[in-house]
Amino acid sequence: MAEWKTISSYLYDCLLKEGITEIFGVPGDYNFALLDELEKYTAIQFIDNRNELNAGYAADGYAQIKGMSALITTFGVGDLSAANAMAGAYSEQVPLIEIVGSPASSMQENGTKAHHTLMNGDYDVFLRMHREITERAIKITADNAVREIPAAIAAALEHRKPVYIDIPQDVALMKINTDSPGDESGTQKNEAKLAAQGAEEVKKALQQADSAVLLVDIYTIRHHLKEKVLQLAEYLNIPTAQMMQGKSGFNEQHPLYIGMYGGAFGNQEVREYVENADIIITAGLLESDFNTAKFTAELHRKKRIDLQPMELFVQGESAGKMKMEVLIDALLSEKCPVFEDKSYFPSFYDELPEKLEPLRAETYYPIIQSVLRPKDILVVETGTLSYGLAHVRLPENSVYISQGSWQSIGYALPAAFGAQMAAPERRVLLFIGDGSFQLTAQGLSSMAEQNIKPVVFFLNNKGYTVERYLNTDNPQAEYNDIPEWDYIKLVKSFYTKARTTRVTTTEELKQAAAQLDETDSLHFIEIVVNDKMDAPLHLKRLREASLQE
Amino acid sequence: MAEWKTISSYLYDCLLKEGITEIFGVPGDYNFALLDELEKYTAIQFIDNRNELNAGYAADGYAQIKGMSALITTFGVGDLSAANAMAGAYSEQVPLIEIVGSPASSMQENGTKAHHTLMNGDYDVFLRMHREITERAIKITADNAVREIPAAIAAALEHRKPVYIDIPQDVALMKINTDSPGDESGTQKNEAKLAAQGAEEVKKALQQADSAVLLVDIYTIRHHLKEKVLQLAEYLNIPTAQMMQGKSGFNEQHPLYIGMYGGAFGNQEVREYVENADIIITAGLLESDFNTAKFTAELHRKKRIDLQPMELFVQGESAGKMKMEVLIDALLSEKCPVFEDKSYFPSFYDELPEKLEPLRAETYYPIIQSVLRPKDILVVETGTLSYGLAHVRLPENSVYISQGSWQSIGYALPAAFGAQMAAPERRVLLFIGDGSFQLTAQGLSSMAEQNIKPVVFFLNNKGYTVERYLNTDNPQAEYNDIPEWDYIKLVKSFYTKARTTRVTTTEELKQAAAQLDETDSLHFIEIVVNDKMDAPLHLKRLREASLQE
Ligand SMILES: Cc1ncc(C[n+]2csc(CCOP(=O)(O)OP(=O)(O)O)c2C)c(N)n1
Ligand SMILES: Cc1ncc(C[n+]2csc(CCOP(=O)(O)OP(=O)(O)O)c2C)c(N)n1
Repeated sequence: MAEWKTISSYLYDCLLKEGITEIFGVPGDYNFALLDELEKYTAIQFIDNRNELNAGYAADGYAQIKGMSALITTFGVGDLSAANAMAGAYSEQVPLIEIVGSPASSMQENGTKAHHTLMNGDYDVFLRMHREITERAIKITADNAVREIPAAIAAALEHRKPVYIDIPQDVALMKINTDSPGDESGTQKNEAKLAAQGAEEVKKALQQADSAVLLVDIYTIRHHLKEKVLQLAEYLNIPTAQMMQGKSGFNEQHPLYIGMYGGAFGNQEVREYVENADIIITAGLLESDFNTAKFTAELHRKKRIDLQPMELFVQGESAGKMKMEVLIDALLSEKCPVFEDKSYFPSFYDELPEKLEPLRAETYYPIIQSVLRPKDILVVETGTLSYGLAHVRLPENSVYISQGSWQSIGYALPAAFGAQMAAPERRVLLFIGDGSFQLTAQGLSSMAEQNIKPVVFFLNNKGYTVERYLNTDNPQAEYNDIPEWDYIKLVKSFYTKARTTRVTTTEELKQAAAQLDETDSLHFIEIVVNDKMDAPLHLKRLREASLQE
Repeated sequence: MAEWKTISSYLYDCLLKEGITEIFGVPGDYNFALLDELEKYTAIQFIDNRNELNAGYAADGYAQIKGMSALITTFGVGDLSAANAMAGAYSEQVPLIEIVGSPASSMQENGTKAHHTLMNGDYDVFLRMHREITERAIKITADNAVREIPAAIAAALEHRKPVYIDIPQDVALMKINTDSPGDESGTQKNEAKLAAQGAEEVKKALQQADSAVLLVDIYTIRHHLKEKVLQLAEYLNIPTAQMMQGKSGFNEQHPLYIGMYGGAFGNQEVREYVENADIIITAGLLESDFNTAKFTAELHRKKRIDLQPMELFVQGESAGKMKMEVLIDALLSEKCPVFEDKSYFPSFYDELPEKLEPLRAETYYPIIQSVLRPKDILVVETGTLSYGLAHVRLPENSVYISQGSWQSIGYALPAAFGAQMAAPERRVLLFIGDGSFQLTAQGLSSMAEQNIKPVVFFLNNKGYTVERYLNTDNPQAEYNDIPEWDYIKLVKSFYTKARTTRVTTTEELKQAAAQLDETDSLHFIEIVVNDKMDAPLHLKRLREASLQE
């Protein structure tokens, strides 16, 4: 039976089907039609943001919890302001649907010199730009809506990538027949056969090995394969480590867990264990510079079995395209060897500082580790914190969100907002440095507006410390200093009721942490360190290695 | 004689030659080489910013005063964060040179999975994207540097457009022979002949006319033709009006000035005068929606002579490509008719409110008009303020900066920072609404860091008022509300010494304005209006017209 509805509400139906109940964005006249329709659409709420970059990051954080998210911006000024967030979602593989309200079709056809255009009559510029940083970028018409909207959403889900949907303001209100979008039936695959062959190969390799290790990484998380990978680990009884960008892909409290693998700069016992194993099975591996600890990771291809979400590699060669879960299921029906030898190598931060001491990496990371609870969501900004927290041991069922690939500072604060909107019942902890905070601090105001109450660990080390480490030629460069704000006052100006504390010693930090049970408002804990060069061990080692180059 | 220097310092030489003594930006590891070289280069100072979008806007404001500007960002995360500012510079025709520090050439060649990439090995993505919003986007090598760098700068100047220069970090430090870049000799032109013919045509048209008017617009300003156009006006003794985006293109105190032309929504006497003239000469006209008051401007082509920076149009037909100054010089040597009849039509805001009254558009614009002084630089944000201030009468030699085409909110605050850095000795006045302020407020901190002291008129009307006007279907839409901040506290958190005042009546505003002579710190005047629908006449008329459509 034919059902007629506006293109906007059809779009919202499609998004709702994927579990989206909040859409982030910023209004602008070209998206009024989209927003007015959304106002009437009760199952989805519009969440306004202080600017479009913040909105994009918030949507990213939301997708990390809910699996997908959506963002509404206005033409040109809006989508370009969010472009960095979209590219970030691409790099980090996050399915984020950006919906852009554009000028009426007639204006576009006439090349009208309307505001928010380049004044050159070209209305496809921003679409073309976004083709470069999304899985697909499309302009909706009455004719293509029923086909293109679900196809774009499906593509985002399949590839774990953002997409860009441009909807002219008149088109947003057009009524269409939304009958039977006609599911594109999946191409018949010989996936099962390939998986059986693959499983056989894997089994053989394992049989010849005395030792093996499983390395869990980012695409395990992105493709929602944590459960499957856990099943495999338990079936093989295989010692399991994580790559840094795979953090929270595996339960760090699990008896099989041996620790965080960080190449030359991480725990050296874990490193030896991993690198010396006869077989290294990786699940969702990404060999980026951050993840491989600046390419110091020695994970020889000849020892490796790489389970990627859509393909299996044995010794660096493709063994066929197949879904990781299908392969793992095939493995679970093989009789594979079970490994015995395993151990847990303590994290750098298992030991709490006992004495009263000033705060520095060696003292605050253990305290932070000690306050974490199962199911916590950690959102960690790029900076010294992303190097340090990678080595903190997480409780069960926690989620760790951090941009190891894209590393755009300013991301974490709005992403924490998005994550909390996606999971109002869970505790969200944001870890952010002063330098990064300055980029998108107004996101705190959205937290106040929505009355959400994350915990903010704010590291005040007076500038861009990680950059002082990375620029070994010029560690004292003036450009890595930043103006000092009155951070507490700032927080209060956005969020009147926020609980704010400034701590300088281990005792003060412990006390502040002890108050996190008061959940009546947001907690903002300013951790003041005196040494501008305060940093976690990983980063110190990285610097030493660079100096020796 | 061969001179060898690093590519970065060669680039800085080229920029310095154009009068650039400050470069805006944000550091990131891929631009360390550029910044370290800049640190050594004493004639140009690096001005750090709280984020890249702010940096881009600041550079735009700087270019509006100095004629050109430069911006240094890091790869991907940096340039995409600033993309909206670059597109704005394109739309508004501002020559802004963005210099992007990118990963080392070897990494680019190998397609290394480095941070700030899309993890797909493609290192040209951001370059391709920027081709769409710049005059040119290039990647520098040791071989092309001496040719491409000056060519890019020249292109920016010629077309009044931004350009994008990607410099891999190793390339930034390479030494090159900077001998004789070999000026691309200008193509021989028959410009003089064309101009003489053009002037003849213009003269004839004027001779047949009983009345004529000159309309000054944006490209007069962008191409630095104010002086020339003034000469023409005086030579013809022709009554002169301005288009809104041409504001400050002509001295509003000049005896020939008749007022601001704002189509159906501006001063109706000016409108009649302009539209009824036998001949309308335009100088640097842009027929955008904002400028033509939503296309209500009736400037019939058959009456028109359009002087564009590079071309002359008579009755809508091209009369040849020639520089405006060459044409005007030719006209100055013709014996043209001189026009007699002229008058000044008062601005909407010439009369000061005498009684104590609450603040509303009718009362605060006159007070603002009364505090303006010759040589002031006004930076005006998009919003009700950009509609209102267009009709405020400016003192001599003032400069008016506002994005009539691109209209990206968040622009004005950083642009005011840039303008003040470009002209430390002049008074800069920023006019900004609460909604817009929230996007880029951290720019105040850069003002504090540089110890500059602009005057900020901050309009607190509780939300996106202009949008309530533009969305006639849904003026009360919730999405046009914004969270209320403690603005004064916020300003203090960034800028401890700022002088802040909150005013609600005409008397209080007058008092605050009387204190602007205290120049020891930044002034922040929060103008609180009670009516969410407070707006200038222009906008009210625009809304009425929309409702009747
Ligand atoms: C958008 C963006 N601009 C610039 C950079 C370069 N960058 C990487 S880390 C960093 C400094 C982070 O400083 P802070 O948040 O204070 O953390 P710290 O290392 O001091 O703990 C900068 C500027 C970036 N990654 N992203
Ligand atoms: C980057 C960007 N996002 C969104 C918009 C849409 N927009 C245009 S004006 C405006 C509201 C401005 O409000 P405010 O600064 O408070 O000025 P008011 O009209 O209330 O005086 C918005 C959201 C825009 N122009 N640019």
